[in-house]
Amino acid sequence: MNTRSGLLFGGIEGGGTKFVCAVGNEKGEILAETRFPTTTPDETLARAVGFFKQQTQTLGALASIGVASFGPLNPRPASAKYGHILPTPKPGWTNADVVGPLRAVFDVPIGFDTDVNGAALGEWRWGAAQGLDTFIYLTIGTGIGGGGLVNGELMHGLLHPEMGHIPLPHSEALDPFEGNCPFHGDCFEGLASGPAIEKRWGGKAETLSPDHPAWDLEAHYIALALRSFICTLSPQRIIIGGGVAQQPQILPLIRQKTQTTLNAYVQSPDILENIDTYIVPPALGGQAGVLGAIALAQQAL
Amino acid sequence: MNTRSGLLFGGIEGGGTKFVCAVGNEKGEILAETRFPTTTPDETLARAVGFFKQQTQTLGALASIGVASFGPLNPRPASAKYGHILPTPKPGWTNADVVGPLRAVFDVPIGFDTDVNGAALGEWRWGAAQGLDTFIYLTIGTGIGGGGLVNGELMHGLLHPEMGHIPLPHSEALDPFEGNCPFHGDCFEGLASGPAIEKRWGGKAETLSPDHPAWDLEAHYIALALRSFICTLSPQRIIIGGGVAQQPQILPLIRQKTQTTLNAYVQSPDILENIDTYIVPPALGGQAGVLGAIALAQQAL
Repeated sequence: MNTRSGLLFGGIEGGGTKFVCAVGNEKGEILAETRFPTTTPDETLARAVGFFKQQTQTLGALASIGVASFGPLNPRPASAKYGHILPTPKPGWTNADVVGPLRAVFDVPIGFDTDVNGAALGEWRWGAAQGLDTFIYLTIGTGIGGGGLVNGELMHGLLHPEMGHIPLPHSEALDPFEGNCPFHGDCFEGLASGPAIEKRWGGKAETLSPDHPAWDLEAHYIALALRSFICTLSPQRIIIGGGVAQQPQILPLIRQKTQTTLNAYVQSPDILENIDTYIVPPALGGQAGVLGAIALAQQAL
Repeated sequence: MNTRSGLLFGGIEGGGTKFVCAVGNEKGEILAETRFPTTTPDETLARAVGFFKQQTQTLGALASIGVASFGPLNPRPASAKYGHILPTPKPGWTNADVVGPLRAVFDVPIGFDTDVNGAALGEWRWGAAQGLDTFIYLTIGTGIGGGGLVNGELMHGLLHPEMGHIPLPHSEALDPFEGNCPFHGDCFEGLASGPAIEKRWGGKAETLSPDHPAWDLEAHYIALALRSFICTLSPQRIIIGGGVAQQPQILPLIRQKTQTTLNAYVQSPDILENIDTYIVPPALGGQAGVLGAIALAQQAL
């Protein structure tokens, strides 16, 4: 089968609530996939290993594996703690070695990065960021995270971005909700994540009607955050994924409010005239995560 | 003379109020320098050309020229408007061609970038950012600007960063000053630039005593901005230059408040334990600007 489809890659989208494992090819086609809840590291990673073992028997050997994981994590191959989760509120996962159990079974290169950097790489390879060298992939759901490419390479630096935790203007007159981030209270994530919406309005985001005032306020905070990212990074495009951004009414609001808050300061036609192609949803849709892991596998090779 | 000192480079630090022109060598040594007020583009650039013509007669030919300029500007060599200033409040400089008059006289490569990207490159070459691939250079003075390297290359993306214009939390109870940015009111620059300090407190920043409450508030805003940049970019170091940051009492306050506002969220010893070497002044001091221009010249070659 390898003769026909070329190399095979394993991808793991490691989320805080569920793991998605898939085998894909160089074209970003998924040949096999499974998903299961995230429990303990031992149990969860054993299920991932079991899936790949089984698949390689029918599909053929994997050329490499990519893991796009929740964080914070250590993505630096030169570090002794490469492939580990850093201190996290998620029970049992602090200092968990994610890459180790895979490496013990599969003697192939293993890529490891944040879920958002993975998704960014997938969008760059097959989706909404093809041909760009500097862009952001933002996810707004249970948490808020951001990654991307700058100068053609994934963002790392000291560790990796934590875009959900930037401070934002927060008027208590406009919005008395105090924010729900355990570290920073009313940071971007504390004001605009799915759980923040639920706590502020007393109902899950997906149950709020499209004309609920929640969406205007949500777009307000997202637009302020985008202005912050635009002024800091000067991205060529911003991709917004995650459950909250899937509400069809919110993207036009975000675009309009981003233009308003930038106030024509950044003189680029991409923002002034073509905002609809500047702030976009993921082209890979719900597959952005696992295809991102496949893209990390390819890059590891 | 070239035999002894190697190649010679021309550097222009193009500021909003003054131009500094210099000839330097590969070691970052300045062999000749002049400074004059920024007037009209024609007159100012003619003085720069005149200086380099004169110097080459005694020192020898220039291998390349670098311009580190106030912005906004077009730093993309592939663009038709490369080397131009973009729309700016500075009278006479909108759409000014900065590189053209130099190219008309000197048949050498000409580098062109923002003043802060230039300063960042200079600090990377000879100063406080040697060996790093991802860091920020921030200047806080008449305006606030930021640049830097990400993944080993200068930050560009869509255009170039405008770090002074990120939104920040602003409590009117704590600080009733409404901000003085003509575009955004109370953005980072609107709250924390030199003119903002002067307008808020009724006295120039350099005349305020070291125990004036202005410095605590100033450090508060700078720390919030640094948290924003750290969460967005994950820099390995932050260099803070500019007149305001030269007050010796402010850097310790900024370091302490940055740790406080991050609240140990970014688990790196560089921030948790070694903040004194994470947030630093420019090693090149007052020469960071013009040496940055020399570094841009070298890179253009």
